[in-house]
Amino acid sequence: MTAGGTSSNAIRIALDAMGGDHAPHEIVAGALLAAKEYPIEILLVGQEEVVRKHLAAFTPDIPRNIEIVDAREVVEMDDPPMTPLRKKRNSSVRICANLVGEGRADAFVSAGQTPATWTSARLVLGMLEGVERPALAQIMPRQNGVTLLLDVGANVQAKVEYLREFAVMGHAFSQTVLGIESPRVGILSIGEEEGKGNELTKETFRVLKETGLNFIGNAEGRDIFNGHADVVVCDGFTGNVVLKASEALGEMVWASMREELSRNAIRMTAGAIVQPFLKNLKKRMDWREYGGAPLLGVKGGCIVCHGRSNSKAIKNAIRVAREFAVNRIDEKIQQKIAELHNREGLPSA
Amino acid sequence: MTAGGTSSNAIRIALDAMGGDHAPHEIVAGALLAAKEYPIEILLVGQEEVVRKHLAAFTPDIPRNIEIVDAREVVEMDDPPMTPLRKKRNSSVRICANLVGEGRADAFVSAGQTPATWTSARLVLGMLEGVERPALAQIMPRQNGVTLLLDVGANVQAKVEYLREFAVMGHAFSQTVLGIESPRVGILSIGEEEGKGNELTKETFRVLKETGLNFIGNAEGRDIFNGHADVVVCDGFTGNVVLKASEALGEMVWASMREELSRNAIRMTAGAIVQPFLKNLKKRMDWREYGGAPLLGVKGGCIVCHGRSNSKAIKNAIRVAREFAVNRIDEKIQQKIAELHNREGLPSA
Repeated sequence: MTAGGTSSNAIRIALDAMGGDHAPHEIVAGALLAAKEYPIEILLVGQEEVVRKHLAAFTPDIPRNIEIVDAREVVEMDDPPMTPLRKKRNSSVRICANLVGEGRADAFVSAGQTPATWTSARLVLGMLEGVERPALAQIMPRQNGVTLLLDVGANVQAKVEYLREFAVMGHAFSQTVLGIESPRVGILSIGEEEGKGNELTKETFRVLKETGLNFIGNAEGRDIFNGHADVVVCDGFTGNVVLKASEALGEMVWASMREELSRNAIRMTAGAIVQPFLKNLKKRMDWREYGGAPLLGVKGGCIVCHGRSNSKAIKNAIRVAREFAVNRIDEKIQQKIAELHNREGLPSA
Repeated sequence: MTAGGTSSNAIRIALDAMGGDHAPHEIVAGALLAAKEYPIEILLVGQEEVVRKHLAAFTPDIPRNIEIVDAREVVEMDDPPMTPLRKKRNSSVRICANLVGEGRADAFVSAGQTPATWTSARLVLGMLEGVERPALAQIMPRQNGVTLLLDVGANVQAKVEYLREFAVMGHAFSQTVLGIESPRVGILSIGEEEGKGNELTKETFRVLKETGLNFIGNAEGRDIFNGHADVVVCDGFTGNVVLKASEALGEMVWASMREELSRNAIRMTAGAIVQPFLKNLKKRMDWREYGGAPLLGVKGGCIVCHGRSNSKAIKNAIRVAREFAVNRIDEKIQQKIAELHNREGLPSA
């Protein structure tokens, strides 16, 4: 670790400078934005000379709240998820996880290969007591507010016990970070009534009724966006498909709108008039604003960013990581899981 | 059946007048629109006095190409799917299926309870030779063209054999009705590479490579909307969730846009200017334009409409039913399934 002027009480976020389609350029740019905007310290993890060069391209002086941490290796998109644990133990994402595991950082952020990131988090940080599987939680925009969708990809196959944990963890995150007093929790299924869905969702329905959560029953696909639910729980396969379809649909609508409003001079003028009024909406629809998906259930904190993240997305992910650490979400989740197990007379670990 | 002036060669569509949130008013209105626009005969199936009263509210004379077929019972939303087969054998949806089964109609259209509709189609019309399960196929809009997504809900749990059939049936529909010469077929999964996904998709990937289709491998959620695939195959649970989420997201974007463009007089003026230029896009995004989802794999034809269908959606569904019948899609699917089985040295039935 190179010398840096850091105070001991500030929240520290480790940032994987080498992960993502636009790394390290956009990651470094995001770090600079966040370092300026938030009261935090950033450990910028990557090949030191490369990171230093990219920093120098933006500013002659490295901000006092950014430190470079050298990591010689980089996990590539086609590396197996276990690579940071086995072959590339000096990779930037592994070093990020190490920093959190050793207490030198409070949480880490990566836009690198997603399975490698959550595998590192799960195995280096370890799971919270009583939690079997981590869940990737995505904040989805709706007309007035947001809905938390989880899991969006950390678990390809789910079990009832996993989904129950996801419900408790999502509830805790929604309450603490999203500020919803009594989040309405639904299980993603087809059809509203109990009895509709597949074997997994039907059994989960039965189990979630007993959790003491504000359980609203089955949520259909539309309930992710129509405001009927605050937390929607599903297996990682379904969640990932819905997330990616939604992102692409949103982008398709904007691209089509641009196309319609550039066909001739009159339309271009109309487009120019209306554009500033739609800025709010565009911003709310933009995944870059939500700054990545927290991996719930691991010790410390891990924020998984979109591979396509730009500096704005990285800055926002650092903000989410900071909120995660300030609010000690991991401890809150552990407490809620313990309450769940006590309620059921099961051992809490 | 009441008297009506129908010629024997025209395509005949049976229409469930009593099914849907806005039945019978909007269904009757849709029948009138379609009867005027297309060279078809419509058998309007429902409680004769009710249907007659609604027709009379629109026009003093029943068009010559609409006949009323009496059906005393109505399937309600909370009736079990087997109701038309067991308790309500005189329900409008069951009579619709009977008319197709007896060769008195070429296809039927219903906006009533979806599971009751496809159960009637499957058991009254019967499955095509060699096809194990029917699939509900939805046409999804994309920037330039459409993507066929199937199954969107007829099979909550799927097997590899089902998904293989869906691929062949979707390919045939895409080629014949959507006019795509060599449709690119993908299996909906998470991650692009062959080894990514769950057990079902991984095994299906292996099997689809051997079908002789233009198989492009795994399709991610985004590939439904970005133009990378023409036919996307999935289990009915995932497909239904994605379909409903996409509908709601599309509606949310338009509602939010309306909201942003009605906050003050200036914005309202800008909205009024831009509105006509976005008509095309809005139309392309509107599920009502696509006229319901064909149930592929049954004999004859069955088009399943959205419960919220208005007259326009019903009119368009009748158009799809007509295309289905004119092009003898059922025969084409049967032929393709036979080719698939021959290719594999399996019996074709």
